Parts: sequence; C-alpha cells; structure tokens
Amino acid sequence: MHFDEAPAFPRGFRCASRNCGLKADGRDLALFASDTDAAAAAVFTRNQFPGAPVILGRETIKGGSLRAIVANSKVSNVATGAEGLANARRMAAAAANELGTTPDRILVSSTGVIGRRLPIEKIEAGLAGMSSDLQSDPLVGASGIMTTDTYAKALSARIGEATITWVAKGSGMIEPNMATMLAYIFTDAAIERAALDRMLRDAVHVSFNMLSVDTDTSTSDTCAILANGQAGSVDEGAFFDALVAGCLRMTEMLARDGEGAEHLLRARVSGAASEEEARRIAKSLVNSPLVKTMVHGADPNVGRLLMAVGKCFDCTIAPQSTDASINGYQVVRGGTRVEFDDATVRDTLRREVVDLEVSLNVGSASATAFGCDLTKGYIDENAAYYSS
Amino acid sequence: MHFDEAPAFPRGFRCASRNCGLKADGRDLALFASDTDAAAAAVFTRNQFPGAPVILGRETIKGGSLRAIVANSKVSNVATGAEGLANARRMAAAAANELGTTPDRILVSSTGVIGRRLPIEKIEAGLAGMSSDLQSDPLVGASGIMTTDTYAKALSARIGEATITWVAKGSGMIEPNMATMLAYIFTDAAIERAALDRMLRDAVHVSFNMLSVDTDTSTSDTCAILANGQAGSVDEGAFFDALVAGCLRMTEMLARDGEGAEHLLRARVSGAASEEEARRIAKSLVNSPLVKTMVHGADPNVGRLLMAVGKCFDCTIAPQSTDASINGYQVVRGGTRVEFDDATVRDTLRREVVDLEVSLNVGSASATAFGCDLTKGYIDENAAYYSS
Repeated sequence: MHFDEAPAFPRGFRCASRNCGLKADGRDLALFASDTDAAAAAVFTRNQFPGAPVILGRETIKGGSLRAIVANSKVSNVATGAEGLANARRMAAAAANELGTTPDRILVSSTGVIGRRLPIEKIEAGLAGMSSDLQSDPLVGASGIMTTDTYAKALSARIGEATITWVAKGSGMIEPNMATMLAYIFTDAAIERAALDRMLRDAVHVSFNMLSVDTDTSTSDTCAILANGQAGSVDEGAFFDALVAGCLRMTEMLARDGEGAEHLLRARVSGAASEEEARRIAKSLVNSPLVKTMVHGADPNVGRLLMAVGKCFDCTIAPQSTDASINGYQVVRGGTRVEFDDATVRDTLRREVVDLEVSLNVGSASATAFGCDLTKGYIDENAAYYSS
Repeated sequence: MHFDEAPAFPRGFRCASRNCGLKADGRDLALFASDTDAAAAAVFTRNQFPGAPVILGRETIKGGSLRAIVANSKVSNVATGAEGLANARRMAAAAANELGTTPDRILVSSTGVIGRRLPIEKIEAGLAGMSSDLQSDPLVGASGIMTTDTYAKALSARIGEATITWVAKGSGMIEPNMATMLAYIFTDAAIERAALDRMLRDAVHVSFNMLSVDTDTSTSDTCAILANGQAGSVDEGAFFDALVAGCLRMTEMLARDGEGAEHLLRARVSGAASEEEARRIAKSLVNSPLVKTMVHGADPNVGRLLMAVGKCFDCTIAPQSTDASINGYQVVRGGTRVEFDDATVRDTLRREVVDLEVSLNVGSASATAFGCDLTKGYIDENAAYYSS
C-alpha cells in the first residue's frame, strides 16, 4: 500500500484549526468538514466514564450522516456532569451554525485534562468565522487536536478514483478498546452506511484496538469515518484492504509517538488456540513494564518474554512447545532459553522498530499488538501533566 | 497487632546466609531450618512458565512436612529445561545432606535472572558446612534472598506462647497471583497441616495477592509457612488474625520498596457488586501508570482515578453514584470532579503513604490493593537488570 508523504483530502473535504484560548500557545480547536452530507460510522471508548462528547457522539452517529467533526484539545470535558453534556451540545450547535447545517450532523470530540469545565464560550467565539479558514491540508486539522503528540499525524492513499485520509492523535492514556484516542477517516468513495460501519469495526479490531502505550483506556476514545461519495463507487474489497493498511500504519505512528517512546514495539503471537488468546498474549507482551524497559535498555533479558506470556493464566500455553525470537533471532526454543550471540541481539534491540515473535504451537490463530518502550520521558510527561 | 522491631524466630528455627559466588558481592544463599519436622503449606505462582524450584516445590509440599528452606538469589533457574529441574533436586539434596534429613523435607527457591543456567556446583560448595552458621536473627536469612530490594525484610509477632515470623523479598516483577515473590512464614504454634493450608490461602488472598509493583507476575513466586509445634497449641482465631496482620504489613513493606518507589499506594474500593469486582477495580487503580505517575508527581489529576475505574469494562459501575477521595479529601462526587483546594490535595499526595478511596455505591463488597508510584528509578533498575 502506498501512502502519500504529503497527505491530501478526498474531494469535498477541508479543515481548519485555530487557537481559541484553551492553550497558552498553539492550536486547540479543529474543524473537519465535508461540503455535502457524508455517510458515517464511529466507534467509541468502552471506558465506563465516557466524556460528554462520547455520550453525545453515540446519539449523533445513530443518524448515520455527518457534515463535520469539531474537536478541541487541552480540556476533555469528562466527569463534568450535566453541564458538560450541555456544553458538548453547544459546541455542536456552534459548528452547525458556522457551517449552515444542523447539530445532528456534527460529531464533537474533546481531548485533554479530565474533570475541568469546558470553556465553551472560548470555543464558540473561536468557531465564529472559522469556515473561511477551511483549506485542503489535513495536517492543519491534525495540529489542532494534539495534546502530548510530538508531531501532527495524517496519511492518505488512493483506491482508483477515490482517496482515503486518516487524521489522528494519540500519545498517552492509550489502550483503546473499540476505538483509539481520536482518529478520523475521510473518503470520497461512495459506501453505504452499514458497509462503512462493518468495515470500520473490522479495521479497528486489528489496528487501533491492538495498540497500547500504557494500558490506560481513555475516556474520550473516538474513531469515526466519513464517506461523502463524491468520487463514486469503488471496489469494496480494495477499499477495505486500504482502510486496514492505513489504520495499521496510523497505529504504528501512534505507538512510536507514545509518551516518551523511543521505539515502536510489535509483538506477533502465532500458533495460539484462538484469536482471542493470541490477542491477549500479544497485548501482555507490549504492556509488560519489564519487556518495555528491556527494549528501552536494549538489554536481552529474554526470560521476560516467557514471563509475559506465562502470566496469561487462562490461555492455552505449553511451555515445552513455546518458541520466541527478537527481530528474527531465536532466543527461546521449547520454553527454554537458547544460546545466542548476546552482542547481536543487543544490537538488534537498538533498532527503532523491535519485533517480538512468539510461537505457541498449540493452535493456528495469530495476532499482532503494537506498543512502545517505557522511558523516563513517560514519567516526565505524566508526573505533572495536570499542572503544566 | 504489635510487631517486634527486632524480629526474632520462633522456638527451634534458625537461619544462615552466605556468598557462594553467584553475586560478585553480598549474600546470595540462604538457609532457614527447623530443628524438628514442621507441618507445612505453600502457594506458588500461577505463571505458566514456573521455574524449576516451583515445579519441584509443588511436588515437595504434597508431603505436608518440611525441615528447611534453601534459597539463592541472582539466578532464578527458570526456562532452564530438564537440567534446571535436576539442579533444583541437587540443591534440595545438598541442603538435606547438610542438615541430616531427606530431600523431600526441603523447599527450594531461586530468584534472579530468568533463563540462565543455575551454577549448582557453587551452591553445593556453599551449602557445605553452612549448618554451623545457623543462628537466630531472621534478617540474616532475609539478606541472602534479596535481589533489587533496598533492605532485608523480616517481622515477628507473639500470640500467647507462640511466635510468628515473616521473611520476604520483593521489588520488581511483582503482581503475585496465588503467592508473592518469596515469602516465608515460620511459627512454633502447633497447627495441623490442613488448617495451616487453609489459613495461608485466606491470608494470602487479602495481602500478597492484592500487591502489584508493576503488573508483571514472576515465574518464581512462592509463599510457604512452617509450623513446628514447639510452643504447643494456640487459639486458631487469634493465630489467623495475627497471620493476616503480618501478611498485610509485609505486603505494605514490599509495595513501598517496589523498584524505584517513593510512595506506598493503597487503593480501597467499597460499595462494589462483588468482592471479585472490588479486587479488580482496586488493582486497576494501583496498576495504572497514569495514577502511579500522578502520585509520583503529587499532581492532583484526579480524573485519572475515574479513568482507571471506568476501564474495568465488565464491572458494575454507575458513574452518577461514584465517589472518590485522596487521603480523606473528596475529589469526585457522583462521577463528577468536585471543587477542592488544589494546594491541600497536592500536599497530601506528597505523603509517603497515599490512600485512594473509591465508593461505587452499587453493592456492599470491598477490597484493598497495594502498590507504589512509578519513577525513573524503576526504569534505571530495569533497563539494564540483565547486564548488571
């Protein structure tokens, strides 16, 4: 799959971002709009304290049609009670007014600190006149939704006459479940809503839902796709393949840019008794603080791989048939550490991308999880996030 | 419950420790012995890659009677295959020979790096003559089983004529499940094996099994109790209460001395639908990297408490009835952040012991979990543990 280095929008989509005063510096408000109604699907966090935008979003997406997404960073509008929900509705109404549509066509997202009142007056003032800023570079919108991300993230790819564009932010509080932090996908392909919903769920299942920076599931996770049909119909199989490829690529970008991260960590588990078990064990590997610090220190303490597999108590594991490798170098055979060249494996752990492979040899299911190393940068980011 | 500041052994128990050459410096071999056979019970790790000593220990404990525990640090004898099991048996035989008993009366433990061959010859040579070093200070034995612990840990308490003594090590790779890293309990109370087994399991359930330094379950976890009966029978209710109190105290010591830790973190969840759910949510709080870094930074980013509760997808949680407090200061009411004095809560987070309380108000079950903050010290310890 080829992704454009300078990502572009599909026909009819544009975006804008501004500073509306939530952050001292930098953009904190983003608007993504289609000039015609688009079929839409979305998945949201399974956290039981969803933010007001997620509560509203679940209601909005039932309509199956969107014109725009409006998102702010810095304040997440979570744990803010009835006033928070009213403010999310005001945010939708202000964006609808600015774009000449109705609030039920607007998906709202907020990301940032939990438990602070949303400064809705600043957002309303910021949205006024914002439609005149709408332009064609997805990175402009991506820059408005960043929190601790180190760079704005967007991708695009072509399928025949159509384009798919991904915009996302991640960084911390990332073990999405049914969605990731904020990921928006735009296409001009004509795809009906039910198919869009099914394809989004299938793509998220193998990509964003296999991502973990720190095991902490955000209260704001939202992944939405908008298809405005302006490029006509496409081959749905090719579209789905491209959708999955882009979601996987964006998942890797989010993992690599996890708070403080210096490595992208991919854990592939094969030969599992079921896909569910393969997913659980792969997640256990990328979530283990001891595996993450081993990668960070490029220290081939390979017994930790077995520890992280073996702590999945309820999975089918046969120690004597378990093999493991690091970037292609076998380090465990039949549940026992094999002799390997320490310096070579140490070198391989210094690569930006570290691939761990575990073959359980008890079945035929497999899964891959995506994570990052654990560094002092993560602690710096999070010991004073609220105050900063 | 009163614990002696200078812990003592019950009648008939003694210990010794030595350097046998596994570590460059410091004690690496410990022997704990009763001068008569003791009724015994033990629980072991649920990790599916148990070390050779755990495999052997499960067989040994079936006999229900022990004379001694022999333990080494530095090398854990895990993922070492058939040779590892043979080496664990040699270690039991060498200790039995030294003490004039049989190998089926010896519990073996090894702790340290996974996947390295156990230098059994050094251990056999070290055990020779070690019985002449046996003496009465439990801290001498405790010092022989330390890995990254910053100090040797032992406690003792009196129940009538009898004494209970706890010796343990912890530090990292600590989310025990059915036991903790290494915890040995000695008593001269006369208690029959079945009662001992039942009381040990009940005490571990509320103490060591509610401890997590880093979510990583060791392959070597062992918790054993030996009762040699030399003080005669005791009131079993009083004995059990003391057993639980000592296990809880030791759990707090292990949590506070977690790798890099600067705070003991206690999370109490009440009003849960079931004890299982209360335990799961309390563990989610002490395991959340974002809660741990919040405590480390004394940064009252209290929305993270709701995030960590809410990511327990399968638990019964009613956002509108959820309350939370930090060291007695209410920060959440009905799922919404309440106004609180930021400076006061920030001060309270600087205490060595931080108590988080969450009231779910959906039932009547409760549980407490024990953990610590996440610091750069943890990363220093674990990015190069194997090499150091």
